[in-house]
Amino acid sequence: MHGPIDRLRQAAERRAAAGLTRVLRPRSPDFDGLLDLASNDYLGLCRDPRLTEAAVAATREWGTGATGSRLVTGSTRLHHELEEALAAFSHSPRSLVFSSGYLANLAAVATLGRGGLVVSDAGNHASIVDACRLARARVVVTPHGDVGAVEKALAGREEENAVVVTDAVFSVDGDLAPLGALSEVAVRNGALLVVDEAHALGVVGESGRGAVHNAGLAGNAHIVRTVTLSKSLGSQGGAVLGAPEVIDTLVDTGRSFIFDTGLAPASAGAALAALHILEEEPDLPKRAREIALALASTARELGFETTEPAAAVVPVVLGDPHRALAAAATCADHGVKVGCFRPPSVPDGRSCLRLTARANLGSEDLAVTGRALAAVAGTKVTA
Amino acid sequence: MHGPIDRLRQAAERRAAAGLTRVLRPRSPDFDGLLDLASNDYLGLCRDPRLTEAAVAATREWGTGATGSRLVTGSTRLHHELEEALAAFSHSPRSLVFSSGYLANLAAVATLGRGGLVVSDAGNHASIVDACRLARARVVVTPHGDVGAVEKALAGREEENAVVVTDAVFSVDGDLAPLGALSEVAVRNGALLVVDEAHALGVVGESGRGAVHNAGLAGNAHIVRTVTLSKSLGSQGGAVLGAPEVIDTLVDTGRSFIFDTGLAPASAGAALAALHILEEEPDLPKRAREIALALASTARELGFETTEPAAAVVPVVLGDPHRALAAAATCADHGVKVGCFRPPSVPDGRSCLRLTARANLGSEDLAVTGRALAAVAGTKVTA
Repeated sequence: MHGPIDRLRQAAERRAAAGLTRVLRPRSPDFDGLLDLASNDYLGLCRDPRLTEAAVAATREWGTGATGSRLVTGSTRLHHELEEALAAFSHSPRSLVFSSGYLANLAAVATLGRGGLVVSDAGNHASIVDACRLARARVVVTPHGDVGAVEKALAGREEENAVVVTDAVFSVDGDLAPLGALSEVAVRNGALLVVDEAHALGVVGESGRGAVHNAGLAGNAHIVRTVTLSKSLGSQGGAVLGAPEVIDTLVDTGRSFIFDTGLAPASAGAALAALHILEEEPDLPKRAREIALALASTARELGFETTEPAAAVVPVVLGDPHRALAAAATCADHGVKVGCFRPPSVPDGRSCLRLTARANLGSEDLAVTGRALAAVAGTKVTA
Repeated sequence: MHGPIDRLRQAAERRAAAGLTRVLRPRSPDFDGLLDLASNDYLGLCRDPRLTEAAVAATREWGTGATGSRLVTGSTRLHHELEEALAAFSHSPRSLVFSSGYLANLAAVATLGRGGLVVSDAGNHASIVDACRLARARVVVTPHGDVGAVEKALAGREEENAVVVTDAVFSVDGDLAPLGALSEVAVRNGALLVVDEAHALGVVGESGRGAVHNAGLAGNAHIVRTVTLSKSLGSQGGAVLGAPEVIDTLVDTGRSFIFDTGLAPASAGAALAALHILEEEPDLPKRAREIALALASTARELGFETTEPAAAVVPVVLGDPHRALAAAATCADHGVKVGCFRPPSVPDGRSCLRLTARANLGSEDLAVTGRALAAVAGTKVTA
């Protein structure tokens, strides 16, 4: 007799044999004394007093929760102020704040693509993949970065409604999507283009206004952007940026907007403070990008496969999941906390370390990282 | 030439004609001076100084964000402490915290039901419906509360893996699922039973330990509970409660867990403080239930269709969406903020007001509500 719990236990044993067991390791406030090269706090704002005090003030004024759906009692003036600031910062007509970037992607793609054709890059984030599944649309997954395949899918469609969706900066490989070409193809074929700026906002382009703005495409009504407040903005939550017609559609029919509790005031306040800092310190994003280039250069010199990072994400490809786990442990032994990505976060055979740059890393931090990666490579480094 | 923005505009015009346009109205901290009968802050904890100061302390110690996925850098000791407290409070072996209840439901149902059979009550919340769609399972939707239909679906299946999913307290009608009977049917047929306690935690049963605990089912390994931290606990986020095998499965393979940023420290701290208050003030949930019964009684006496509320949710059925909107406006004119639910939040023809009880409402609040509902009913009330 095999009950459902027995079946779960057997599946767990199969994952363990494949090196795919994951363990939650609760950390201390100082990342257990390790150098943090694993978080998505790209600008180092997560513990900035300007953010913490904004979160404190928002909590004291508004309470600890939004109290309901944004459509019932969960829209405060603070949410409205954040939406105005996000739209202004991104040069977008309107914006709509969600309690997570995951839910923002679900709403944008599933709502706008509903019943039509959704064309999705093979490298897109899991939240986009789930959004495609929820759209009840015909979904065509195109090879990574293949604009020709996107055009072919759009041109050959019978559906009137079509959405193309892509990460701006891919979450593990750190490369940039061909946004200009994708935008042209979308316009030519009467489609919307949804661009997930999760890893681009606050990092890519002038003042960190993101990849769409950097490509000169911020004014295009057919481009819809999704962003997260939990990476460069050091907070929690997500948003959709777009034309009034897009935002109105999500407010009226976006399931993961309508049926979710609004973002907590503390997180809204913190994200708003981060946007103010980006306006005041426009060089922060550039600093994060420079650190990423330095990290990639170090990895490359040690013989690792990596990419030319467009933002703050630097992959170090190792292939086998057990090898990736061992490499992450070696880095920790050398004082550096790195991300370790295995399936289903990456394709089979592409397990890797994921290093993230932070604007507030210094030269000694880079030296420590070099020594850790050298240890992974088995290279002796003379101090 | 009809581009995608034109199509969105046309769809918006159709929604407007059907009375289904929604508008975000940013509120003030005091709910624009209205009596709040619309939020899900069932215990009135959202602005309790014990919660706000816990959120402040968590923000100062941990920063404004979790900085990454729970599997990379987003698991702090605070998250761990909250998970221990949730498990202890609910008499569950383990718990796993998410950034929203929506994402907790997606993970529980889509992961545990994957590739098998999912049997879902017709009245389930949108997040459960979306979770069913993501499970890539055969989904059978059974009539509301129909245990016989659930048994028939389970007994006739060819799939080994099966999950039954239900709200504990339904989010608009406020009625209770037949949990004892569903549990028996699930056991007899080798299925897991997922129960969404969003509107039950903190309200139903002794000390608000929820409907599963109240039915004497908390020790059953085949029952998985999902909860939200954003209603009675006055914060943001969600959690899954269950056997170690269930939680391990979600940590290893739950997409909306792995690929989402962890809950912000402020929200984790506030939810933890709310659990402490529930242990210290075990009569709070009973008070919320008594207020709900009083509200329902008032509505019934005025001739409205309502239910015998099992928790804090009281529907006042009006049918037509325009009529529901007008009724909500009348309530506001009389100083009371109520929820107004129209499709797709409720089935066609079932538009309603949704009143929510709060533990800290007094007799004058109930009198004001009675006058507002009387105005909706067109009844003259002699003050």
